[in-house]
Amino acid sequence: MSIIITGGAGFIGVNLAKCFVDQGLSVYLLDNLCRGSIQNIETFKLDNVVKFKHVNLHIYDEVRKVFSDINKSEPVTEVWHMAANSDIPAGVEDSDIDLRDTFMTTYNILKVMKETKIRFLSFASTSAIYGDLGVTPLKENIGPLLPISHYGAMKLASEACISAATESYLDKSIIFRFPNVIGIPATHGVIYDFIDKLKMNESTLHVLGDGSQQKSYLHVDDLIAAMLHVKNISVHGPNIFNIGADDNGVSVKTIAEEVVQHFRPGANILYGEGNKGWVGDVPKFIFSTEKIKLTGWRPRLSSREAVTKAVSEIIKQRG
Amino acid sequence: MSIIITGGAGFIGVNLAKCFVDQGLSVYLLDNLCRGSIQNIETFKLDNVVKFKHVNLHIYDEVRKVFSDINKSEPVTEVWHMAANSDIPAGVEDSDIDLRDTFMTTYNILKVMKETKIRFLSFASTSAIYGDLGVTPLKENIGPLLPISHYGAMKLASEACISAATESYLDKSIIFRFPNVIGIPATHGVIYDFIDKLKMNESTLHVLGDGSQQKSYLHVDDLIAAMLHVKNISVHGPNIFNIGADDNGVSVKTIAEEVVQHFRPGANILYGEGNKGWVGDVPKFIFSTEKIKLTGWRPRLSSREAVTKAVSEIIKQRG
Repeated sequence: MSIIITGGAGFIGVNLAKCFVDQGLSVYLLDNLCRGSIQNIETFKLDNVVKFKHVNLHIYDEVRKVFSDINKSEPVTEVWHMAANSDIPAGVEDSDIDLRDTFMTTYNILKVMKETKIRFLSFASTSAIYGDLGVTPLKENIGPLLPISHYGAMKLASEACISAATESYLDKSIIFRFPNVIGIPATHGVIYDFIDKLKMNESTLHVLGDGSQQKSYLHVDDLIAAMLHVKNISVHGPNIFNIGADDNGVSVKTIAEEVVQHFRPGANILYGEGNKGWVGDVPKFIFSTEKIKLTGWRPRLSSREAVTKAVSEIIKQRG
Repeated sequence: MSIIITGGAGFIGVNLAKCFVDQGLSVYLLDNLCRGSIQNIETFKLDNVVKFKHVNLHIYDEVRKVFSDINKSEPVTEVWHMAANSDIPAGVEDSDIDLRDTFMTTYNILKVMKETKIRFLSFASTSAIYGDLGVTPLKENIGPLLPISHYGAMKLASEACISAATESYLDKSIIFRFPNVIGIPATHGVIYDFIDKLKMNESTLHVLGDGSQQKSYLHVDDLIAAMLHVKNISVHGPNIFNIGADDNGVSVKTIAEEVVQHFRPGANILYGEGNKGWVGDVPKFIFSTEKIKLTGWRPRLSSREAVTKAVSEIIKQRG
């Protein structure tokens, strides 16, 4: 018996894999190494427990081959689909990126799961599917769902296909709607970008937008704990859960100050204009986690604590 | 100035075109004639007012060419995107059909609208995006959206992309969520199927499911009136409206009896089992039209009256 993690060499995938390995499970990491990297998985002994497969998940024939090869040698009981384009601004410029890496990956995986009769799918969705609903708390049963980025659109499109598949040939699916997740190995995100910018320009950090964007941040350790918790309490059919910190988040200004203080003390911070970092950026939202809390889960860290921890971790990671 | 109607040789497209022609507008009908037909548009003088273009909208290069050709000769101000796979059970068997004809058509049209700077899109969505929410009235702002057919999934996926496009490069979009629409020229649907079956077997009508499925039906004349009404009251950004009859619908049993009575009086009706016609069929739903009614629109016909009218029309159409 084995588990497939797509995007297995990426930020979430690697952390998830660690957990499964600790449980003694046989894990296959699938990745095209566009955003994930071999470095990320070097901590694993790539042997009988963790196996890596290079695959382009947006190409149906590749998905079919790798799934059916794995399924023949060790029947696959679960697919954790974490692969996606994680560069939201890139998708604003070129919608084909989100089509290919976020939507078509999901579509192909579902099609092959139908063919190979693998009946459990766990999917990394996002708060971005809710679009910009202002101060309305984003609960799992809210509508209308009007994502304002291609990233959010292709995640919602993926959710829709998973829902139809669950009616037709999956036994169970879990749709996790992630907040901003931070920690290591970082491959992208606001903290990563700020450190990158300060490496290039030690004296000044240029921030997109006026710094007032306020978002909920969750440390990846809390995220993984939540995912495994939901897996345990999930029921037949589709399961949808927001995962997030138990607060209204942290401003970009706070994050910028934290990064500067710990990485380049004394550097100036220069803000842009407006409260959006880019087209499709949701400046502020209240991400409801009532549903998962009712099941007994609580994050260990607040958004603020998660930022502090991740800043320290990512500075260490990036030398 | 001109208007593009995709699926222009199909059921809704033809009725919409008639309306625009009556208003003296220049109309381009785009269709691949898979489900639409040349017969349907023979009533138009295909001349300077109505022009037909054969195009496969799931192929980006074809969409780009036809849009840019039209836009050069007569600047396009509006796109009414009605093209889609309308055969829901076919999509259950082969999800590629809905991917190609429902989702990729929308995706390509949006991409080309961005390139050609056409900023108004009207889209034929469906009550199927709501999935099976039982007796909960389906209002435009309800969630979670868990479609149970690939058809519904690909329509929701299309809505998501239109939403992101409206944030980024469209001025305005209208997402019409259609109920079951009936009338002529019929190309599919329950009445059409029943007549088809009674042509093959004059003595017995076999009905999928136990006949208890109850759905709201709207006559296409009422639908077109509603679409033009919403166009007039629509605002900048995305606009979402359910369109439907002002009642809880009609059962499949009633429709079967109506068709038999008028087409093959005396024929037996044999029902199947269960309250679903196929996987992904939503057996019963309450389709809220409060929002559009608040804007002053009312259908002229009830579901029952629409069925009676359409049965008579389709019997005449099909000889």
